[in-house]
Amino acid sequence: MTWLALSDDDPFDAWTLPYGVFSVAGGSPRVGAAVGSWVLDLAPLAGADLFAHPTLNPFLAAGRPVWDAVRARLLELVTDPRHRDLVSPHLVPAADVTLRLPFEVADYVDFYASQTHAENVGRLFRPANPALPAAWRQLPIGYHGRAGTVVVSGTAVARPSGLRRAGGPGSPVEFGSSLRLDIEAEAGFVVGAPSALGSPVPVGAFEDHVFGMVLVNDWSARDIQAFEYVPLGPFLGKSFATSVSAWVVPLAALAHARVAPPPRSPAVASYLRDAEPWGLDVSFEVEWNGTVVSRPPLRSLYWTPAQMLAHLTVNGASLRTGDLYASGTISGPRPGGSGCFLELTWNGAEPVTLADGSSRAFLLDGDTVTIRATAPGPAGGRIALGEVTGTVHP
Amino acid sequence: MTWLALSDDDPFDAWTLPYGVFSVAGGSPRVGAAVGSWVLDLAPLAGADLFAHPTLNPFLAAGRPVWDAVRARLLELVTDPRHRDLVSPHLVPAADVTLRLPFEVADYVDFYASQTHAENVGRLFRPANPALPAAWRQLPIGYHGRAGTVVVSGTAVARPSGLRRAGGPGSPVEFGSSLRLDIEAEAGFVVGAPSALGSPVPVGAFEDHVFGMVLVNDWSARDIQAFEYVPLGPFLGKSFATSVSAWVVPLAALAHARVAPPPRSPAVASYLRDAEPWGLDVSFEVEWNGTVVSRPPLRSLYWTPAQMLAHLTVNGASLRTGDLYASGTISGPRPGGSGCFLELTWNGAEPVTLADGSSRAFLLDGDTVTIRATAPGPAGGRIALGEVTGTVHP
Repeated sequence: MTWLALSDDDPFDAWTLPYGVFSVAGGSPRVGAAVGSWVLDLAPLAGADLFAHPTLNPFLAAGRPVWDAVRARLLELVTDPRHRDLVSPHLVPAADVTLRLPFEVADYVDFYASQTHAENVGRLFRPANPALPAAWRQLPIGYHGRAGTVVVSGTAVARPSGLRRAGGPGSPVEFGSSLRLDIEAEAGFVVGAPSALGSPVPVGAFEDHVFGMVLVNDWSARDIQAFEYVPLGPFLGKSFATSVSAWVVPLAALAHARVAPPPRSPAVASYLRDAEPWGLDVSFEVEWNGTVVSRPPLRSLYWTPAQMLAHLTVNGASLRTGDLYASGTISGPRPGGSGCFLELTWNGAEPVTLADGSSRAFLLDGDTVTIRATAPGPAGGRIALGEVTGTVHP
Repeated sequence: MTWLALSDDDPFDAWTLPYGVFSVAGGSPRVGAAVGSWVLDLAPLAGADLFAHPTLNPFLAAGRPVWDAVRARLLELVTDPRHRDLVSPHLVPAADVTLRLPFEVADYVDFYASQTHAENVGRLFRPANPALPAAWRQLPIGYHGRAGTVVVSGTAVARPSGLRRAGGPGSPVEFGSSLRLDIEAEAGFVVGAPSALGSPVPVGAFEDHVFGMVLVNDWSARDIQAFEYVPLGPFLGKSFATSVSAWVVPLAALAHARVAPPPRSPAVASYLRDAEPWGLDVSFEVEWNGTVVSRPPLRSLYWTPAQMLAHLTVNGASLRTGDLYASGTISGPRPGGSGCFLELTWNGAEPVTLADGSSRAFLLDGDTVTIRATAPGPAGGRIALGEVTGTVHP
């Protein structure tokens, strides 16, 4: 479908066309689209006003008609061979670019939309209580995270310190490095078009406000989190780093991944009732030092991103361009689907063995975690949605 | 001490010199300092590079040596009568200006530093548990709020809707307007100089990073909050609006308000040990439709803003210019010191009577709440720290 020479090893095909911010040695950062082993330099191809910027935010703010028009034009450019001479000078080898955080994050919200994850965490953290919090089936539980520590894939993650019970529940509280450093594999949704304070965004307006999706690793220090989180929620256990993929996949590229969400019972409030299915059949893969240790299924989430957005704004809270909200850990109901190591190793009680024969409960210094995802694409094929990776430093 | 003609009715004296962003009809917003019944137009008086901007952020980012130099110059300008001819053309009548949100908020964090407040909320929300959360005396508990809905004093606050139990605990969950709309009187601290990811800010570096203080009303829908907050903390019950005063008081103006914090037991971790006293003897006053209903004392807080900053960054989280963190509700241990109506009326069980003879448990549509504060100033006097006000709309 494209005149570009692509190989099976390329990270992106000619349909996905994700957007990111790149620079080449000596150049200023600007917006590109990834295709094959190249980055399309968009300022000369699709408009300097939208794309000659160090973040995606001006393009995000332009709104859906512009997003759709630009994507239609890019699809035309990469599929119609008559555009070869026009496009070729603006193909930058992906191997030559440095990728930046693709957008300036306004507010960052993290949800808790996987029933399996919520139940497992409930069993581990609050064994005396029901596994699911009382409100869990009635609204998508969420909270605000730290926008200023959202970093791009590849950024080193320093092991955080804090107060924690090094010897587990009941042991003395001590200050020190986290001994239970974990990941959370999540899907993140990037808001483009803002909304006014006092005006909730209906569940059906999801596509008018949300531009696209990133892969998220919400690094979590379980020991710090366990000590601090009552009653106001996670704080230092999460705020040291949240990694996102460098390429933002537009919602339009996920058209073939849409599925009906799981049945919901009891019936949800009217502001959460969704006419259009925004379940997403995205398959995640978590790689720990090169060994795939789990395959979390996004389609298993109880709440869709359209419902999360409606909930986030139903109290009149406004949206800004660059708002990021994430699904929360994606853990599927079947074995092998855990989106965090807390669940995968059952709080360390059941370590995993990696390909090099070593055993892991939580992250060690030097460990690298890479999260990838794929989804159904056009013509029965699959598309890749990129990756988010990070290495733990002392 | 000043050649300006000030009256006792003026909101600010010639010592406090708080900074804000103002505009006059037809003009673009820019930075000013308040003195008497005037606003000093700072771009012509102290540098367009720092002050000809619609936010304080460029000045905040300039760092403490610049903050100190500018304040010294402004004090000289308003006290030495030889500067009258230089200054007079740049005095804008305060009655003629519109005030804006003074800084662009990066991340917003809210703490929970009043022991009385934490104990009262514990008794009301979690009667079966100990009043104070287990970690409360060992670290300043906090969480992230929504930066995008921080609004300037005077902004109307729309009553939020959400899922709540209209009939109290055990009653059916219904969607509708909040029936328990409340305020929280707080002190907010504005970060100027940023810090690097991975580098904790020591408790002694407070003055190098924090520029000044604002008054905060963290509007809270108690019924929405009570239903949603387990286990990830408050979300929609708080995210609809947080009001801040239009004038940021520099820390340097609070030199005479510094006091030793209350004794802490057990001893705190070394990263929270404070050599310099950053307790602040600031007296708040909460006015409900013109009736003063409480006088919360900031000096009663268990944790100081210097400790909050050290805690916020001890895990390596970075600071950005424009970060805002607030104390949490200030409630003093004595009667009459409640910083929210949840405590003042004991969750509505003990309504208050206003000057017009009407009775209140929580906020009604049309109600106006104004929070003011004063502190010890130079020469045994008191300085005013401005106000934050808002009116509830349906």
